[in-house]
Amino acid sequence: MKKILLFAFAAMMAVGASAQELANFSRNAQQIVSPEIKGDSVTFRLSANYATVVNLYGNWMANYTDVVPLTKGNDGVWEVTIAAPEPEIYTYNFIVDGVSVNDPRNYMVQRDGTRYLNMLLVPGERSANYNETLAHRGTVSYRWYDSNILGINRRVTVYTPYGYENSKQKYPVLYLLHGAGGDEEAWSSMGRTAQIMDNLIEQGKAVPMIVVMPNGNPGQQAAGTMGLPVKNYDYRAPENANIYVRSLVEELVPFIEKEYRAIPKKASRAIAGLSMGGGHTFAATTLYPDKFDYICPLSAGTRESDTLDQQLQGIKKAGYKLYWIGCGTADFAYPNNQVLDKALTRNGMPHTFYESTGGHEWKNWRLYLNTFAPLLFK
Amino acid sequence: MKKILLFAFAAMMAVGASAQELANFSRNAQQIVSPEIKGDSVTFRLSANYATVVNLYGNWMANYTDVVPLTKGNDGVWEVTIAAPEPEIYTYNFIVDGVSVNDPRNYMVQRDGTRYLNMLLVPGERSANYNETLAHRGTVSYRWYDSNILGINRRVTVYTPYGYENSKQKYPVLYLLHGAGGDEEAWSSMGRTAQIMDNLIEQGKAVPMIVVMPNGNPGQQAAGTMGLPVKNYDYRAPENANIYVRSLVEELVPFIEKEYRAIPKKASRAIAGLSMGGGHTFAATTLYPDKFDYICPLSAGTRESDTLDQQLQGIKKAGYKLYWIGCGTADFAYPNNQVLDKALTRNGMPHTFYESTGGHEWKNWRLYLNTFAPLLFK
Repeated sequence: MKKILLFAFAAMMAVGASAQELANFSRNAQQIVSPEIKGDSVTFRLSANYATVVNLYGNWMANYTDVVPLTKGNDGVWEVTIAAPEPEIYTYNFIVDGVSVNDPRNYMVQRDGTRYLNMLLVPGERSANYNETLAHRGTVSYRWYDSNILGINRRVTVYTPYGYENSKQKYPVLYLLHGAGGDEEAWSSMGRTAQIMDNLIEQGKAVPMIVVMPNGNPGQQAAGTMGLPVKNYDYRAPENANIYVRSLVEELVPFIEKEYRAIPKKASRAIAGLSMGGGHTFAATTLYPDKFDYICPLSAGTRESDTLDQQLQGIKKAGYKLYWIGCGTADFAYPNNQVLDKALTRNGMPHTFYESTGGHEWKNWRLYLNTFAPLLFK
Repeated sequence: MKKILLFAFAAMMAVGASAQELANFSRNAQQIVSPEIKGDSVTFRLSANYATVVNLYGNWMANYTDVVPLTKGNDGVWEVTIAAPEPEIYTYNFIVDGVSVNDPRNYMVQRDGTRYLNMLLVPGERSANYNETLAHRGTVSYRWYDSNILGINRRVTVYTPYGYENSKQKYPVLYLLHGAGGDEEAWSSMGRTAQIMDNLIEQGKAVPMIVVMPNGNPGQQAAGTMGLPVKNYDYRAPENANIYVRSLVEELVPFIEKEYRAIPKKASRAIAGLSMGGGHTFAATTLYPDKFDYICPLSAGTRESDTLDQQLQGIKKAGYKLYWIGCGTADFAYPNNQVLDKALTRNGMPHTFYESTGGHEWKNWRLYLNTFAPLLFK
C-alpha cells in the first residue's frame, strides 16, 4: 500500500497535481532538501530517475562552461555538494539532458521576464540586508493607475514602510526604475527592495520612505498578466518624445502624491534607476530639474554630446542634494559612467562615483540600493 | 558574427543569465511562442535540442498517463498542437526525459507550494472573470501583522477594491481561507481572486469589498520567504486548541478593522474557505457565532458528531444571512458536505448547497468564489 501511494505521489508530482490535492500523499513521500547549506558547503538535489545527464549551473560560476555534474544515487536522486560561493544572492538551475529545469524543492524564485530562476542566498555580511528582517516589515502593494499620456492603465509596485497604515505621518518617496528586460516586479523580486528597506529602516540607517517601482516599458500595462495588449508607439513622432519619462513625472508622481501620504516637495523626492532606468533617471532630471533632489543613475552613465553640459547646468541651477553614480568596473556601461563623472566634475557639481567590482548584474544593483538609500532625505 | 551572438545567447539562456543582461542579445534570438491559442486549438513549443523524449501534461487530461508527445523539428524546437480544452484555467508542464519542465516562454505561472506551474487560460464564458478586466482594478497588498497568540508576525494578502485609496468609504470584508498545502498567496495566485473581484465589481454584480487572505498554517510566518523559522506547537496542549482560528478572529479581524476602512459589524463580515479553510470556517463560526453573517465552507463539510446540532444551533441563535456550501460531486469531501447539508436542514437553517461537477480542485474553488461573492453583503 505504501509503495502504491509513493508511486501515485511520484506520478502526480511529475505531472503537476495541486499541492492541496496532494496534501494527504505528501506526508508519505520522500522529502528531498535542496539547496541545503551546511557550514561552507551547499548541496543540491534533484529526483530524476530517467535522466541521462544532470548538471548544475549557478551564476556564481565564472563561465557558462563551468557547470557541475550531479551524481545519481540508487534512489534516482541526483546530488552534488560544492563549496558555498561568497555571501550574496545567486540564481541557479539544473540542466537535465540539455534543458533548464528549476529546483522543485526550492520556494525561493526570482522572475526575470518569462523565466523563473531559483535563488540561493548565502548568508554573510554582504547579504545580511537581503534576508527578511525578523522584526518590522513594510507592505508591498500592486496598484493600478491611469496614464493619459500612454493611453493605458498600468500596474506599479509600491513599498510603504512599517507603520504607514497606522499613522498620519507623511513620507518622502524614492522612484526606483528597472532596466531593459525588466518590469514593475524586477526591483521587488530580483532587487530585494522590501527586504533591504525593511532592514535599513529597522537599523536606523535609512529614514522611512515610500518606494515606487513602475513599469518602464511604455507600451506595457503590466508584466505577467494575460490578455493585455501591448501598445506600440511611433517613437519618431514628436508627440512621443520622452513619452515614458513624461508619464512618470507628469502623471505617476502626482498620482502617488495624491493617493499616498507623500511629501510633495523636491527635497522629499529621489529618483534612481539601473541601466535603461538610469537613462530614464537622467532624462527625468534634465527635463524636470525642479522635481528631484536626489539623483542616482546606476550602471548607466551617459555619452558625450553637445548638450550634456547644458543639461547638467540645468540641474546645477535648480539645485540638488545628492548625485550618486554607481557602476561596476567590469560593466560595459563603465566608460559611460566615466563620461558622466567627468562631466559632473567639469561643471562643478558635487557627486559620488561609487565604483564596485563586477558588471551589469543584480548583485551590484542590490549593493547600490543598500548603499545609497541611507543617504536619502537627510 | 550573427551566428556567434545566437550561440552566445542560447548558451546564456540555457544557464539562466539575467534578462537585463540579455536585452541586447534577445533581439537576435528566435522568439518561440508558447502556448499559442488559435481558434479551437493550442500549440505548445519547447526548444530542447538534446532531449530524447518530450511530453506535455495538462491538468485537463483525465489521467496522468494521457501525456501527449511533442515532435522535434529540424531547429531543435519540439511542438504539438491539440484541441483546446473547454474554457477554464489549467496548469501544464513539459516532461523532458522524465523531468517536469516549465514552459520558458509563458509568463503566466501559478505557485503551488514550492512548485511553479504554467497556466493556460482558455477563453470563454466560464473563464471570462478569471482574466484581467480592462477597466478598474483593485490593489493587492502583502501586509505583515503581529500575532501574540501564535507568537510570530505573519504575512497576509489583502485585496482592496478600485477606489479604496481615493475615498473615505468604509467597506465590508470577506475572509478567504486556503486549504492544506496552500498559503497566503494561494487564493490570489491559483484562485484569481483579484481578477474575479475586479470583474464582479466592475459588472455591478458584487459590492465593493475588502478580501483578506491569511496564511492558515499556524506555525508559518509566510510562504516563499527564506530564513524564517517554522514554529511547532503542541496541539494536544489545551492552550493550543483552535489556536489558528482564535488568532484569526481575535487578532486578524481587529487588525483589519483598525488599519483598513472596514465596517466593524457582523453584517459586514463574511468568511469562506476551501478544504482545511472550510474547516477553519466551520470552527470560526461555531466558536464565534456573533462574528460573521456570511458563511461559505467550500469542499469541506463536516462529520456527524454528538455536538454538531448544538454547534449549528449556536449559529442559528446568533443569526446569519447566508450559509452557502459548495462541493463537487466527485470530491472526496462530498459525503461530508451531504452531512452538513442534512444537519442544516434538520436544524431548520436556510442554506444553499451548490453542487458542481468535478472534485477537489481549483477550477471549482474559482467557480464558487465567482458564484457566492455576488451574494455577500446584500
